[in-house]
Amino acid sequence: MTDRVNGFVSGDAIQMEGAADGPLKGLRFAAKDIFDVAGHVTGGGNPDWARTHGPATETAPAVQRLLDAGATLAGKTITDELTRGILGINAHYGTPVNPRAPDRVPGGSSSGSASVVAEGLVDFALGSDTGGSVRVPASFCGIHGIRPTHGRIPLKGIIEQAPSFDTVGWFATDAGVMERVGTVLLDRGGASPPFSKLVVAEDAFAIAGTDVNVAVAPVVGTAKGLLNGWENLHLCPTDLAAWQNAMFTVQQWEAHRSFADWIDRINPRFSYDVAQRFVMASTVTGEDVKAAERVRQGHQQRMEAVLAPGTVIALPTTPAPAPLRNLRQSQMREVRQRIVTLTCIAGAVGLPQVNIPVTTADGLPVGLSLIGPRGSDEMLLSFAGSLIRSADFR
Amino acid sequence: MTDRVNGFVSGDAIQMEGAADGPLKGLRFAAKDIFDVAGHVTGGGNPDWARTHGPATETAPAVQRLLDAGATLAGKTITDELTRGILGINAHYGTPVNPRAPDRVPGGSSSGSASVVAEGLVDFALGSDTGGSVRVPASFCGIHGIRPTHGRIPLKGIIEQAPSFDTVGWFATDAGVMERVGTVLLDRGGASPPFSKLVVAEDAFAIAGTDVNVAVAPVVGTAKGLLNGWENLHLCPTDLAAWQNAMFTVQQWEAHRSFADWIDRINPRFSYDVAQRFVMASTVTGEDVKAAERVRQGHQQRMEAVLAPGTVIALPTTPAPAPLRNLRQSQMREVRQRIVTLTCIAGAVGLPQVNIPVTTADGLPVGLSLIGPRGSDEMLLSFAGSLIRSADFR
Repeated sequence: MTDRVNGFVSGDAIQMEGAADGPLKGLRFAAKDIFDVAGHVTGGGNPDWARTHGPATETAPAVQRLLDAGATLAGKTITDELTRGILGINAHYGTPVNPRAPDRVPGGSSSGSASVVAEGLVDFALGSDTGGSVRVPASFCGIHGIRPTHGRIPLKGIIEQAPSFDTVGWFATDAGVMERVGTVLLDRGGASPPFSKLVVAEDAFAIAGTDVNVAVAPVVGTAKGLLNGWENLHLCPTDLAAWQNAMFTVQQWEAHRSFADWIDRINPRFSYDVAQRFVMASTVTGEDVKAAERVRQGHQQRMEAVLAPGTVIALPTTPAPAPLRNLRQSQMREVRQRIVTLTCIAGAVGLPQVNIPVTTADGLPVGLSLIGPRGSDEMLLSFAGSLIRSADFR
Repeated sequence: MTDRVNGFVSGDAIQMEGAADGPLKGLRFAAKDIFDVAGHVTGGGNPDWARTHGPATETAPAVQRLLDAGATLAGKTITDELTRGILGINAHYGTPVNPRAPDRVPGGSSSGSASVVAEGLVDFALGSDTGGSVRVPASFCGIHGIRPTHGRIPLKGIIEQAPSFDTVGWFATDAGVMERVGTVLLDRGGASPPFSKLVVAEDAFAIAGTDVNVAVAPVVGTAKGLLNGWENLHLCPTDLAAWQNAMFTVQQWEAHRSFADWIDRINPRFSYDVAQRFVMASTVTGEDVKAAERVRQGHQQRMEAVLAPGTVIALPTTPAPAPLRNLRQSQMREVRQRIVTLTCIAGAVGLPQVNIPVTTADGLPVGLSLIGPRGSDEMLLSFAGSLIRSADFR
């Protein structure tokens, strides 16, 4: 297989046949290089992580479930260093190509997984989403992606970043494949009544550009038509930036806890922007975290109030299409800041979110997102499928 | 030439014959890889610096003077990334070997230059010293080294770090070679009466360990014998840490100015400790700098008062021998902090300082330093030679 998009990790070509039979028989998948595969080093997108870790002794349960269900693992994929990024930039192994917009970043941190799915090199791919790492590359590369309810897929055997946010997610170009993979990966207990009401998140749409608003409008219209009712609503009583700041503080704190000892021991090489995030993370205090957790509780209560059973929220996945690859870091930081103001809405409080790919007037991929109540993952995937079948948005 | 100590930059072997005749005829030297040599890329100890810079069009005047004086350039040497370090650690190209203590760091940032001189691969080597980058590796590797008076050797054609501190310095194992190189490199105008009085810097000795105090005592004794008088003195009326903090603030500020645009454009890979210094440097404010410059002025006035014509100060070059190579970064930071409390004394205010190598009871190299008045560089080198000839301290 030729890796035209620099999405796969090179040097350790992993190929594992799935079980002879199962619900995913015939499908080929890739896994972000933070998932353990027994006998192989989990590289985490950083050469010093790879150098200082031995081969995994067990395969991550998420990968194993897919193999047991008949899917074939075709390789591991490039990730932002230790999942610390949402633009898909990797200074060590190269930034994977965004097949739909080659002069733009693919989004990350599950960059390689999105890239190889968008290029059609595999049927689906595993990623992880802490602060947007599945949703952003799905939007930028124009594919389906889900960040499931926090806790519904075991995190065992993956490189942990911020455990109270980390989730295992996946990408596909086909909505039906998204659903089939969900039946295998998601733990039981995801019950949700069918959606009957749409909430259009006004404050989230206000953050997105006109091009994105125009591009997602037809899907929102179709969704309204499929449901009994809808309303416009400001999700955050104050300002989405307040929710984002709180999430950022807690995520930094947890990421620091996950990696500080290794960093102190190894003095690893990072690209400057990744190192900068770790340095700033090391300055977060316990007091900062306490204050942020209070905001996060309010955020959670508000989202539970909005998401009565049968409710689904529509919002743009990202405020804009993917930025150009060659921006300055200071420009990239501004882009990132705007994006996480949207991804924090579900990410900070463990809610499931799916991306439905659409295209702007300029031909660039972006996405409409749906956020459902906790445990409504299957319903979200099914509703996304209905929307796709109801119209052609691509 | 076999590089047994990983001191030379590999991949671009530079060899330039010196002029047919001159005061340095027959001597071979190396230059830290921050000095431009026409036709070659100046690598600066960082692969992304090398990748984003073309070959130099002119040779740095300091290198050219040596070639014109008959010395042969045998190669460029490894440096801490962009001279940002004093321990000699380079995560990209490897930390050069300390030939006198192979399980310990060589000191830096002029690490490779000190390493190849100590191993005897060249007769002398060029380094640079902003906050200790010649003096520290000279002490750790047990060789002679000088940080000259600020401004006496042109900085043109070298990678600038903090211009109000940067100096060009050099290393040799032979005190006579130190003097000969000085006659070629130092601008005219370095006049100083012969030294007549020794000041023993009590507060500096108090920071050094007992092993260092014991090791340098015989040289101090000999110096007392060669001069008319001596006294014990606290250099800093308050605390050397105050001088060090002020120097650190201004140096960070200047280093940020030197590299911020390139970092923003390139997003380079750094080892974590180097990135951390740049990140913290970016948080220094103009107000911080103003306050620090006031302390620096007081520091300068005090040193001028102590260094009446004919006065020379004795102090330990480093508080301890080189630390082990495998320490944690948090431990390395503590070591660094202690070291710069000594190196800031001359470094913050542009004074010349030479290192005279001695050995601890454990057989580890350390150094006694002499600081003289501005422009007393030749006198310092000559006095160091007299001390060496008066006794065997090795």
